[in-house]
Parts: sequence; C-alpha cells; structure tokens
Amino acid sequence: MYIIIIGSGRLGRMLSEELTDAGHNVSVVDRDSKRLEALGTGFNGLSVKGIEYDNAVLKEAGIKHADYVLSVTSDDNLNITVSLAAKEIFKVPRVIARVNEPQKKSVYELLGIEMINPTELISYIIKGKVEGSQR
Amino acid sequence: MYIIIIGSGRLGRMLSEELTDAGHNVSVVDRDSKRLEALGTGFNGLSVKGIEYDNAVLKEAGIKHADYVLSVTSDDNLNITVSLAAKEIFKVPRVIARVNEPQKKSVYELLGIEMINPTELISYIIKGKVEGSQR
Repeated sequence: MYIIIIGSGRLGRMLSEELTDAGHNVSVVDRDSKRLEALGTGFNGLSVKGIEYDNAVLKEAGIKHADYVLSVTSDDNLNITVSLAAKEIFKVPRVIARVNEPQKKSVYELLGIEMINPTELISYIIKGKVEGSQR
Repeated sequence: MYIIIIGSGRLGRMLSEELTDAGHNVSVVDRDSKRLEALGTGFNGLSVKGIEYDNAVLKEAGIKHADYVLSVTSDDNLNITVSLAAKEIFKVPRVIARVNEPQKKSVYELLGIEMINPTELISYIIKGKVEGSQR
C-alpha cells in the first residue's frame, strides 16, 4: 500500500520504520527538516519538507495515489485539517488521525475522522495491568 | 489498592480518573500546581505539589503504604529516578514507568524497571489497523 505519514515525531518515525519494514511504500511529511533527518538512514521512503496541510505539499507526497493517510502530529488542529483535506479533497480511501487532547475527541467524531487516542489507550492498558495484578 | 501517580499530565490525569472511578485510592504528585489543578473537581484523591523524586514529597504522597507507583511523566530521567526510589528505598511492590524516548528503553531494562512504551504500543496498534484493512 502507499501510505502517507504526517508528522515525523516519535510516533511518525516509528510508524514509518514499521510500515516500511512490512513492505509498504511510505512517505513522511513534516515542516521541520531536523525531524525529517531523524528518520535515519534505515528509512528508504520519500520524505517531504513542507507545511503539512498545504495541498501542493500533500501532492508532492503522493496523496493522489495514497491508500492511507496517517496524521500523527502532536497538534490536533493540524491533524484535523490534514485529515479533512485527505478525505474531502483527495478522496483518500482510509484516513486515521491521532488525538492529542482527549477533550478534542468530540471534534474528530463530529467531522467523521477515524481516530486513535493514545492517552485513552495507554491509560486503559496501564489500568488493565494494575487490576490484573490484583487478582 | 493505594496507587501513586507521578505526573499530572494528560496520561496521569486520565489514569487518576480511571483508577479513582474503579475504587482505588489515588494520590498524584507533580511540581506544577497548574497541572494538578487540571485534575478537576471530579478527582477526590490526594494531590501533592513538589519535586517528584524528593523523598519527603513521596512520603507525603503516602509511598510508605503504596501498592503501586505509576511514573508517567514526559521526562524519562525523572521516571527512572522515581521508579528506583520507589523500588529500592521504599520497597513499593509494583512500579511501572512510562518510556518517552524509545531509545531509552534499554536503560529501563538494565535497571529492571517495568515499563510501558506508548510510542511502540500505539505504533503497533495503528500498524494492525492498516494491515487489517488490507485483508
């Protein structure tokens, strides 16, 4: 599959590595060249420096033939904007966005954006560990 | 159970809510009073303002009778220091620490600190979604 990852922070970088290793074609978009450089020499996909919600930048990243857009920056507004562009303008079949502030969840829901909420998931996992140890 | 949460950021706050709701006694430690205030009125546990690795602060949070310490700040060195104090000085039965920088994982491992690595877990979950959609 052709997968565009928005955001070359910790999560974006790990995802780019995992998905490349799994044989997918990956491009990573970030406005910060230092974060892109941190992708490391092991990354053999495309890295695109530019404003993440800019249509020209998204086109350069190959959004017209993308199967997936994963918007995983630490900025909810940015994730929402890119996800809507991917869905509404470029008709990308699958889009997933990261929720940072749990209170923003309702905005993603209202806009019909599929989301992943790390804080909620990790909290759930830790709670499971704590309660599991009690039995 | 008596559970001490170190760090009143997003994850610490969500955990404090979830674990309080589940009937546990929770105290939360953070040096930043604004982050502690963000616990909100729903939180009926103990909140302690102070340097998180300070033994006096940890005692005030009730570490001597804690069943669990969850160190979930965004600072790996802090999580490591508190976890070691909890384990070695105060003999807390169970300690879990959050890993922020995936490269720091080996340090936690070397020191025998049980860890939760959000970046790795969330990356794994997203990869599962992406690959699941392919079938």
